Amino acid sequence: MLYTDAIVAPSQILKMAKDNPPLPIAVVCAHHPNIMETMKQALARNLCIPYLLGKADKIHKLANEYAIPSEKIIVIDCGEEDAHAANIAVEMVHKQEVSALMKGHIHTDVLMRAVVASGNGLRTERRISHVFVMSFPNSDRLLMITDAAVNIQPDEKGYQGIISNVIDCAHKIGYAFPKIALLSASEDVLSAMPSSVLADNATRWAAQVYAGRAIVEGPFALDNAVSLEAAKLKGIERQVAGNADIVVVPDIVSGNILFKTLVYFCGACASGIVLGAKVPIVLTSRADPVEAKIASIALAAKMSS
Amino acid sequence: MLYTDAIVAPSQILKMAKDNPPLPIAVVCAHHPNIMETMKQALARNLCIPYLLGKADKIHKLANEYAIPSEKIIVIDCGEEDAHAANIAVEMVHKQEVSALMKGHIHTDVLMRAVVASGNGLRTERRISHVFVMSFPNSDRLLMITDAAVNIQPDEKGYQGIISNVIDCAHKIGYAFPKIALLSASEDVLSAMPSSVLADNATRWAAQVYAGRAIVEGPFALDNAVSLEAAKLKGIERQVAGNADIVVVPDIVSGNILFKTLVYFCGACASGIVLGAKVPIVLTSRADPVEAKIASIALAAKMSS
Repeated sequence: MLYTDAIVAPSQILKMAKDNPPLPIAVVCAHHPNIMETMKQALARNLCIPYLLGKADKIHKLANEYAIPSEKIIVIDCGEEDAHAANIAVEMVHKQEVSALMKGHIHTDVLMRAVVASGNGLRTERRISHVFVMSFPNSDRLLMITDAAVNIQPDEKGYQGIISNVIDCAHKIGYAFPKIALLSASEDVLSAMPSSVLADNATRWAAQVYAGRAIVEGPFALDNAVSLEAAKLKGIERQVAGNADIVVVPDIVSGNILFKTLVYFCGACASGIVLGAKVPIVLTSRADPVEAKIASIALAAKMSS
Repeated sequence: MLYTDAIVAPSQILKMAKDNPPLPIAVVCAHHPNIMETMKQALARNLCIPYLLGKADKIHKLANEYAIPSEKIIVIDCGEEDAHAANIAVEMVHKQEVSALMKGHIHTDVLMRAVVASGNGLRTERRISHVFVMSFPNSDRLLMITDAAVNIQPDEKGYQGIISNVIDCAHKIGYAFPKIALLSASEDVLSAMPSSVLADNATRWAAQVYAGRAIVEGPFALDNAVSLEAAKLKGIERQVAGNADIVVVPDIVSGNILFKTLVYFCGACASGIVLGAKVPIVLTSRADPVEAKIASIALAAKMSS
């Protein structure tokens, strides 16, 4: 019953970025041990050039504690205001000094407010959305989940934007023809279950927009999206059945439950980035292990290459 | 990161019903090999007295193939119409000939239509809802999930009914003071996230209605409901934090994704029954392993004892 079909190695996320030059990344409010531990390991892998924004004295002190050579980091003092650090990071993107952002010891809301600000923010014509790339112990398979972190309950247009972003991301990280399952609670389209209608409409939309570049199908219940055995038993003969590279959830609650179940019950590693802004943004939580943060930086490096 | 805190043995569901007399159960449309395999094993464990409703000739033939002695089963011919078998099963409950129902080779809708029929159905003053009791390999802990199968998107009243049913169920299967986490995507109450508001209101409601009999708290993100480590790291000091016996999902899609992730990625066993009708109803899917079906029958036996 466990997830065993191999597609890509779990270390594949790190391997993806191996040939990239180190990513210039602005870490917003870097004054936290957790962040410094991550930077130490990212530097050891030559993954990034860290621009550490925040309280400079604290950052220098922590860098010293973690034995990070001062010539390996660029520290930028932003004073006490977290929002100020976020604004400076956004400016650095505009000046092309950095190619990615990373959330440090700052509230997601405060960081994202600077990112989505009209005028000088980092919006593009794309929707802002989030993707998790999950890897599993003893398996080479990856599973991408979107959107489990940014969009609460997308409408049809938002849902299409989320799908477009994840297809773009999949192409960039090496899936030539990603297989995408749009999740609901079953394969039936029921007016009482809005997620099934959303999935059904988006299947037709994507067939036109992404013909030859991706296959998008739904609605799917999770089992028939990821398990060939389950799909065969139920006689579901869609292309994506049992073989999904990506699952699109209808709302943040189902996505949050999905990725956290994989992390807390299955020992999966969740690397994740925000898509659709001018540069990729690594949004990590304090509770994330360093391994997940490093993989997220690698993902951002691959995305901005 | 794996789920290890032990509460009850996975075989505990079977043990629960060990001292119960065999459960008289009406299996609706029993003419399927999968059902007969389940009955064979249930009989070997002395779990039930099977009333097998459906196409009698097929049932007799299958019973013979599976070497089930004819004196161990009661076969009731219901002809070709699945709905007729469902109606006869409901009548048998009214006549107190059986103490539980089980879905055989029949559409859930057809069975449930007979159950909820006004007048002669099996409704009580309670809401009809579903509970899964999940058990895990190499762990003694159980986790109950409700409602991942019957209520699509409950309103406040429906949500309260679901909580009441699962508390009643938990009491009956041996949890004197069940700890219940109401799930959303975080611990924050946000008007943009209806599940968090639902959870917040239900926490106050349950504090009055179930004081001393259960503890109900929410909103919770999944990690802080089931992982003490995560809850501690985030400084969440609620009673249920990290220790939930039961998680209540806001809708069928998140519940479906949750239980299927546990089954297909973590090798969990999902036993489940419908609550709130005159008798417990075992709703299984063809794809369920026999082990899950047996555990569901044991659960029904415990519930009707």
